[in-house]
Amino acid sequence: MKLAPNEFEIKHQITYYECDPAGVVTPGMLINMIVLVSEQQSDALKIGTQVVNANGGGWVITNYEINITDLPKIDETVFLGTRATSYNRYFAFREFWVRDESGHEYAHITGMFVFMEFASRKMAKIPAAIIDPYHSTEVKRIPRIKNPVAIADDEKSTTNQYRVRYFDIDSNRHVNNAHYFDWMLDVLGADFLKTHMLKKMNIKYSHEVRYGQMVNSLATAPKQDEYNGQLMTKHEIIVDDVLTTQANCWWIDRP
Amino acid sequence: MKLAPNEFEIKHQITYYECDPAGVVTPGMLINMIVLVSEQQSDALKIGTQVVNANGGGWVITNYEINITDLPKIDETVFLGTRATSYNRYFAFREFWVRDESGHEYAHITGMFVFMEFASRKMAKIPAAIIDPYHSTEVKRIPRIKNPVAIADDEKSTTNQYRVRYFDIDSNRHVNNAHYFDWMLDVLGADFLKTHMLKKMNIKYSHEVRYGQMVNSLATAPKQDEYNGQLMTKHEIIVDDVLTTQANCWWIDRP
Repeated sequence: MKLAPNEFEIKHQITYYECDPAGVVTPGMLINMIVLVSEQQSDALKIGTQVVNANGGGWVITNYEINITDLPKIDETVFLGTRATSYNRYFAFREFWVRDESGHEYAHITGMFVFMEFASRKMAKIPAAIIDPYHSTEVKRIPRIKNPVAIADDEKSTTNQYRVRYFDIDSNRHVNNAHYFDWMLDVLGADFLKTHMLKKMNIKYSHEVRYGQMVNSLATAPKQDEYNGQLMTKHEIIVDDVLTTQANCWWIDRP
Repeated sequence: MKLAPNEFEIKHQITYYECDPAGVVTPGMLINMIVLVSEQQSDALKIGTQVVNANGGGWVITNYEINITDLPKIDETVFLGTRATSYNRYFAFREFWVRDESGHEYAHITGMFVFMEFASRKMAKIPAAIIDPYHSTEVKRIPRIKNPVAIADDEKSTTNQYRVRYFDIDSNRHVNNAHYFDWMLDVLGADFLKTHMLKKMNIKYSHEVRYGQMVNSLATAPKQDEYNGQLMTKHEIIVDDVLTTQANCWWIDRP
């Protein structure tokens, strides 16, 4: 497929350890894969992590919106793609996709990134040196990713506790993103996860989770969303009474 | 490299989510990778899981011995290899390796497998149909993999508890092997794991761990092995008072 100057793709063969018991890619591994392609794009453009850090900060993800048609299966070879779509002073909007050879899109994901300055520990203007090479479009109004709806005070939820392990930290020296998805969705239980397929997910990261912390993962019981009629669950990751991550998920019956 | 009829290799590029904070492959992912190549060998020989199951049972791993020279790093392309070395009536002995293009061997692993019959839930004679295609050598005396030394009654150990999660189950419908390694080694703590490198590990599986169970992972404090002078740790995975998995690990300072 012909790629635009701001697009980048890699081939990837799905391994059994990226799949759930049904042999399809897990939501956590889907995110690992799309981060993989965006890191390879950055490396190819010579604006990888080291260069970004040399500019006094690092990229931080604030939101993802994940839309799933279906998910690739074990042993399939897929194309992981990404496009640095647009940016303004503070926000960079990026798209990701997973497709097969014929162009069928398994999943489409949008993500919002900010540049966090080391010195101030705050969001700062994105340095030109680390955004220009992406051939992204500078815009006034950046597309928005909807924030998840919070769990209401009177809404019942179930909770599990998870310990953040040493091997949860990946070579980026942060808790690997996949684990947030595992903590969030595991609470729903095998009976639900075996019979339902994730169609859409909005996730918002507010605070980082760190090694050794105990994570409380809350999830509401699946309930029909009044807007689209789909089954919906709401999720929160709480560490020491601090809300670190929120998500909403929409589900259909497994085909 | 020229492969013998009983040998099989695949290429694999190391992803960031297969690596620890130092950017090297984790022990758990190393095992995932070598299982990956043996599954692809079985599929290529048309004696994959479905065919094995149609013969009334399944392959079960009883022991691994892992020897590490060094470990591949993020983005490296490696060759994962396996050889069905030898077998007798009940046991199949297999070797695995991870090497680079020039032939440097990062790790060499041996594994012992038995055929577990579904009906009797016991070890049974390995059916010819699922062993012959490997071109393995039939032998009277099979090489032995040393069993780990148990934690002595008077030996102090530290313990962490881990919940077996839904996404710990992979497309083989068992708890993915990598998690046993994560549970075992995580107990040693970040300070130790950051400064030490695993050189050798013996692991013995006695009972399967299942979804929803709470795992107690015990580890002894690192102590010099009187035989080779290397730092050694002993490990046990206990579920509901049943000893499911044992291991010994030998460590050196990280270079």
